[in-house]
Amino acid sequence: MPVPSMDLVARLLKGDLRAAGRLMSRAEAGSEEARAALGKVYKAAGKAHIVGLTGVPGSGKSTLVSKLVQTIREDGRKVGVIAIDPSSPFSGGSILGDRIRMSNLTMDDGVYIRSMATRGSTGGLARSALAAVDILDAAGFDVIIIETVGVGQDEVEIARASHSTIVVSAPGLGDDVQAIKAGILEIADIHVVSKCDRADANRTITDLKTMLAMGISVSMRNRDDKPLWQVPVVGTSAETGEGIGELVATMDRHRKAHHTTELGAERLRRIAEYRTFKTAEDLLRSRFFASTSERVAALVERISRRELDPFAASDELMSNVAL
Amino acid sequence: MPVPSMDLVARLLKGDLRAAGRLMSRAEAGSEEARAALGKVYKAAGKAHIVGLTGVPGSGKSTLVSKLVQTIREDGRKVGVIAIDPSSPFSGGSILGDRIRMSNLTMDDGVYIRSMATRGSTGGLARSALAAVDILDAAGFDVIIIETVGVGQDEVEIARASHSTIVVSAPGLGDDVQAIKAGILEIADIHVVSKCDRADANRTITDLKTMLAMGISVSMRNRDDKPLWQVPVVGTSAETGEGIGELVATMDRHRKAHHTTELGAERLRRIAEYRTFKTAEDLLRSRFFASTSERVAALVERISRRELDPFAASDELMSNVAL
Repeated sequence: MPVPSMDLVARLLKGDLRAAGRLMSRAEAGSEEARAALGKVYKAAGKAHIVGLTGVPGSGKSTLVSKLVQTIREDGRKVGVIAIDPSSPFSGGSILGDRIRMSNLTMDDGVYIRSMATRGSTGGLARSALAAVDILDAAGFDVIIIETVGVGQDEVEIARASHSTIVVSAPGLGDDVQAIKAGILEIADIHVVSKCDRADANRTITDLKTMLAMGISVSMRNRDDKPLWQVPVVGTSAETGEGIGELVATMDRHRKAHHTTELGAERLRRIAEYRTFKTAEDLLRSRFFASTSERVAALVERISRRELDPFAASDELMSNVAL
Repeated sequence: MPVPSMDLVARLLKGDLRAAGRLMSRAEAGSEEARAALGKVYKAAGKAHIVGLTGVPGSGKSTLVSKLVQTIREDGRKVGVIAIDPSSPFSGGSILGDRIRMSNLTMDDGVYIRSMATRGSTGGLARSALAAVDILDAAGFDVIIIETVGVGQDEVEIARASHSTIVVSAPGLGDDVQAIKAGILEIADIHVVSKCDRADANRTITDLKTMLAMGISVSMRNRDDKPLWQVPVVGTSAETGEGIGELVATMDRHRKAHHTTELGAERLRRIAEYRTFKTAEDLLRSRFFASTSERVAALVERISRRELDPFAASDELMSNVAL
């Protein structure tokens, strides 16, 4: 008999990290039995500082996260990482490299790192990643970093579902990488330029500052339009350690500026709305597909021969659904 | 009064490309009025060779596509491109660079290029991209290339929803880019190593061939387990033009090997199933959210204060849905 999820929650709230891992697995699997327990975890959470960290592939996110974890930990704070890996949609595996890079941290009880694969079409990435954040929050972690690759709409949305969003850029990336980056620059509360031991890093910093000066620099405004927060650009080097302390201080400063304001409360409402939609969507989808998969199978042959179209087929499938 | 979508379909089937563009916009917008028309387009389609082309950022996809289009066009075939741009989830804009790079092709009636943005949380990317493919197919295009970035689960799935899937790799990308690439290698019917004018390209080609030799090389097998298709590795250079002709010939060869077999038919059924689920899911989601958005708004405040959890809230929202 598996341990009931509610029992795992009781252990979790006493700080049991094995219970944390098991609850995360159940959240990832979309367990129906775990729903009420995860609801209880959600209500117990809400104290931690949630930091979304994203950037294009090659921007050095994982190395930066590893340094951030060390530095935050040196303050005595407990820090968790939920890393959304853009690995195989088929194997469901995660990137070994990330785990290895971080393994020097994992002997410490005040550090918890979890990789989540972006699985195929099962969906639920946002729901399970954010449930994992709650789990660490309820277990008493002070700072929780959600690391996602800044490509793919779910991945970007997940990074936004945080109190402070960091966008990492790196000097010297190719043209189309930069173009993709442009799509995520605007979600930053804090910009980081990594690898700033490189000669061409200054150029990247200047470009970002110019862009910010041109008008998309203010992530939060008061009702009277006075800026609460000017988006800063922090240069870091995982090599030399430069800027890591400044980045942690900037994160803390953003949290403080944001935490008690009406704009901060608005942000929490936006996140709550996002989570509710995502959770409801998963539930809706799984129940719908459970109830229709046989009927879909019966239609597929005709659809593949183009005798029936997917739009008409959907209408047919929906005819049984009362909304 | 906007032109009824069915009238646009009549024009489309005579090859009117302005009608094609307008129908694509309606598909992207998720227009209810256009559903029946898009269903008709689906039934009229099915002749074109659909090629999915994907690769990590920085692999040189867009430049390669531009060269492919020129070469296919030189045979006299009509060729369309649907480019899924990983641009802003907020502006919905697309990458200007791609459009500019391809603009020398766009004066030709036998070439049609459409960029689609990966918009925020509206969903429907797969549904609208594949509807756009149908539209070009029904308009008489011979080859249709769907170009997606190989990160993000939707983007990878869309590239798979094709007759022939090309995965583009490039020499000299960073470590974490390569790690991401590992996740999409297995979906390839054809591997391309771009930028093979570079000295380090041979290494990339050798690595891929070694990987293929190690056992994941065969994308299609007959019932008697005799391989129908050995996944090839084609080196190309947009700079020198090397390998582009070979790639086109390989695409054609894959199409021929695949087209009339039971495995080809199985692939078409898988695509039909994928499309039906995606179309039904969009419909389900939009109707559900239309019927619940007010109720969600009423709950958000309590959820953001953690008095109510998203799981219980979802159950409450679902209580009205009969599945």
